[in-house]
Amino acid sequence: MRFATRDNGTADGELLVVSADGTRGLSAGPEWPNLLGALDRWEAALPALGALADRVAVGQGADLDPAELRAPLPRTWQWLDGSAFPTHGELMQQAFNLPPIETDKPLMYQGMSHEFLAPAAEVPFPSAADGIDFEGEFGVVTGPVPMGCPADEALAHVRLVVLINDWSLRTIAPIEMKTGFGWVQAKPACSVAPFAVTPDELGEAWRDGRVCLSLTVEVNGAWFGHPNGQAMAYGFHELIAHAAATRSLPAGTIIGSGTVSNPEHAVVGSTCISERRAIERIAHGEFRTPFLGDGDRVAMQVGKDAAFFGRIDQRVKVIG
Amino acid sequence: MRFATRDNGTADGELLVVSADGTRGLSAGPEWPNLLGALDRWEAALPALGALADRVAVGQGADLDPAELRAPLPRTWQWLDGSAFPTHGELMQQAFNLPPIETDKPLMYQGMSHEFLAPAAEVPFPSAADGIDFEGEFGVVTGPVPMGCPADEALAHVRLVVLINDWSLRTIAPIEMKTGFGWVQAKPACSVAPFAVTPDELGEAWRDGRVCLSLTVEVNGAWFGHPNGQAMAYGFHELIAHAAATRSLPAGTIIGSGTVSNPEHAVVGSTCISERRAIERIAHGEFRTPFLGDGDRVAMQVGKDAAFFGRIDQRVKVIG
Repeated sequence: MRFATRDNGTADGELLVVSADGTRGLSAGPEWPNLLGALDRWEAALPALGALADRVAVGQGADLDPAELRAPLPRTWQWLDGSAFPTHGELMQQAFNLPPIETDKPLMYQGMSHEFLAPAAEVPFPSAADGIDFEGEFGVVTGPVPMGCPADEALAHVRLVVLINDWSLRTIAPIEMKTGFGWVQAKPACSVAPFAVTPDELGEAWRDGRVCLSLTVEVNGAWFGHPNGQAMAYGFHELIAHAAATRSLPAGTIIGSGTVSNPEHAVVGSTCISERRAIERIAHGEFRTPFLGDGDRVAMQVGKDAAFFGRIDQRVKVIG
Repeated sequence: MRFATRDNGTADGELLVVSADGTRGLSAGPEWPNLLGALDRWEAALPALGALADRVAVGQGADLDPAELRAPLPRTWQWLDGSAFPTHGELMQQAFNLPPIETDKPLMYQGMSHEFLAPAAEVPFPSAADGIDFEGEFGVVTGPVPMGCPADEALAHVRLVVLINDWSLRTIAPIEMKTGFGWVQAKPACSVAPFAVTPDELGEAWRDGRVCLSLTVEVNGAWFGHPNGQAMAYGFHELIAHAAATRSLPAGTIIGSGTVSNPEHAVVGSTCISERRAIERIAHGEFRTPFLGDGDRVAMQVGKDAAFFGRIDQRVKVIG
């Protein structure tokens, strides 16, 4: 099944069940008014949502207006973002002469979850001097996960898969990272592609707890990268187990993969400017690609037809 | 005004307006069923809540059962915790031979906000080997704060003041801190004292964006410390402005002071075991106070009569 959230003036929006081509949708109605509520009672919601999916599959539903679609979860209780692609970390360390991060566990920070931006929304930033950058990521939305859930039981708690742009401010990020406290100012609201899909929708592309699809990024209409989500050092089951080691996770928790990055970056490019700049510095001794400014446009999708998740297509708005 | 949340089987609990002595309360009723909802429409809620406070002040309301009280906000959209008492950081650095943290900004991390434990709840931990510790803190609950809010406008957004035990796992904390990503496993759910109070309730004790009260901690019935909240290097207005630099804050955001700590620690003690252990190591070359184990009891309150916030009184439950 595939879900979207339509703006209806409420904080959580209106839950829609969406056709496989992403063009039509049916409202889940007053019993399941929004996705966060449906995730709270997922087993109870599935029959009704499945019936709507059957109707959409035979051609029912109204045409979707992309401008009305919000993030599938416009807000949720928890956003924990990993950094599971080792190539990304290695490039950053090489370019900036940093020591490897010493840990035998997945890397993860907690980010803001009270606001996820709509896929076509303008994205406000206070200053271009902050080093405005994107990060293309896959993510999973979990049901409730008990504290201590082992990795080999964690995939059963994955309800949905999403595509995320984890907006990042690169001038601030290393300063906050050096404190050891993680990022607050460097990680403003993320954006999310319009459709959240159940893992079965992905077919063979969902395996080993990984989204084995290429995440294509375009900046101002030009290709920027399309690395594949398969290259995670830890799968989502391991990220969930890491997150749940000392806490239970509520329904609606989103776990992110971190910036999708592949060893073949010379061919497949990157999903954030910072990594491309690192590659430039290693190769040429200097940064060549600037960070973003007012009016710059960033798009993300899977494949040429924006498969599964639809398309994020946004403009940067510097309000300072 | 003073508020509490009673367990009524819902995720957010039932909002109560509470007497100044913390013994009686009146339900805010179906229009204001819970505190998170009231914070969303605070200006609209104030007349009704004020009328209830007037009734409570003249003796109305039912006796409160402490066992039924939950955290004032059993869950909320955002928990950002500072570390604003410089003595705490200095002692930790001296004891562990760490360099000072290089930053000219407040220290802050984002912690889990989907669960705050009730003041009399048993507190579950997976393992005593994780170094179970408490941190006594004051915190503020904000209304909506716009992105870029300056510090000199931030105090106007403070709706409530709370007393928090930020449970911490000391074996894990330095490992996560070294990654730069902040804490996930080292910071399980916090506990909150039963009453959230409007700043005016504190009178002269609320000044310069600081809670100028002594936070008393007892462990297994014995005094552990009572340092004063006045000694923050940054006031809550500065912590709010830091948090809101690149994001807007939703109503119900909780901002924490960090472990309350005073230069006069030889007299006033500490509000976490880790700091006491640091002092022991500096003085004696060895740690003497162990971290907590199954059945240990931790209580926190202000003054002898648990003024303003009531009393946290909990037992540790090691479930591993």
